Amino acid sequence: MPRLTRIHETVLYGPDLDAMAAFYTGALGLRQVSRNADRGVVFRITADSVLIAFNPGETTKPHEVVPSHGATGPGHIAFTIPREDLDAWRDHLTGAGLAIEREVTWPTGARSLYVRDPAGNSVELLAGEVWPA
Amino acid sequence: MPRLTRIHETVLYGPDLDAMAAFYTGALGLRQVSRNADRGVVFRITADSVLIAFNPGETTKPHEVVPSHGATGPGHIAFTIPREDLDAWRDHLTGAGLAIEREVTWPTGARSLYVRDPAGNSVELLAGEVWPA
Repeated sequence: MPRLTRIHETVLYGPDLDAMAAFYTGALGLRQVSRNADRGVVFRITADSVLIAFNPGETTKPHEVVPSHGATGPGHIAFTIPREDLDAWRDHLTGAGLAIEREVTWPTGARSLYVRDPAGNSVELLAGEVWPA
Repeated sequence: MPRLTRIHETVLYGPDLDAMAAFYTGALGLRQVSRNADRGVVFRITADSVLIAFNPGETTKPHEVVPSHGATGPGHIAFTIPREDLDAWRDHLTGAGLAIEREVTWPTGARSLYVRDPAGNSVELLAGEVWPA
């Protein structure tokens, strides 16, 4: 069996890429590394992974190189945060004018904060693990 | 600024979780670690990351604990594969009855294979890097 080593591209959709770029670089502090006109914005997460915000109004069109895709409606992503940064994240997000939609303490002891990005995607900041190894 | 260390949960949507589970464990060889009735299936990717296939027919409903979410239409994900496994992946996927929708060689020299999962999500297997560091 050939191997998959990790997830390289995680994708969220939103029609307003300027708003998405402002949110992910500003409120979340990600580093934007590429912008393709009105099609997509790429944020570097680690040396081997990125987050891409795509505009489904563009990506659903036929493309010369890559397959078409593009979803509508709120997606979901969870980022790992260090446990010691949880309070700082709550302060930072509320200070940026964002509402904490939910705050959850999981049976494992992990904790999550949830906010919405400008497209309505549910963005979770997770300290600890919630899923089986 | 508090820290985000990585993406912990990457999400795709599909209404038929049995079909999604069969595809991601069978054709892609992922390891399923959780199944929540007709709501979602969790696949372990690394010690600190998972892929979750959610049924938007369930996740869009109000929930006691977590915010609602759920997209429709084809999403996109890219998995990293070792370069030396590219030919084996092509053989494995076609042997599993899947069509290779596109095969791309990028300006960086990276190479990608694209297939569709049962929900129509565009699944890319990527050997190499396509985005700026």
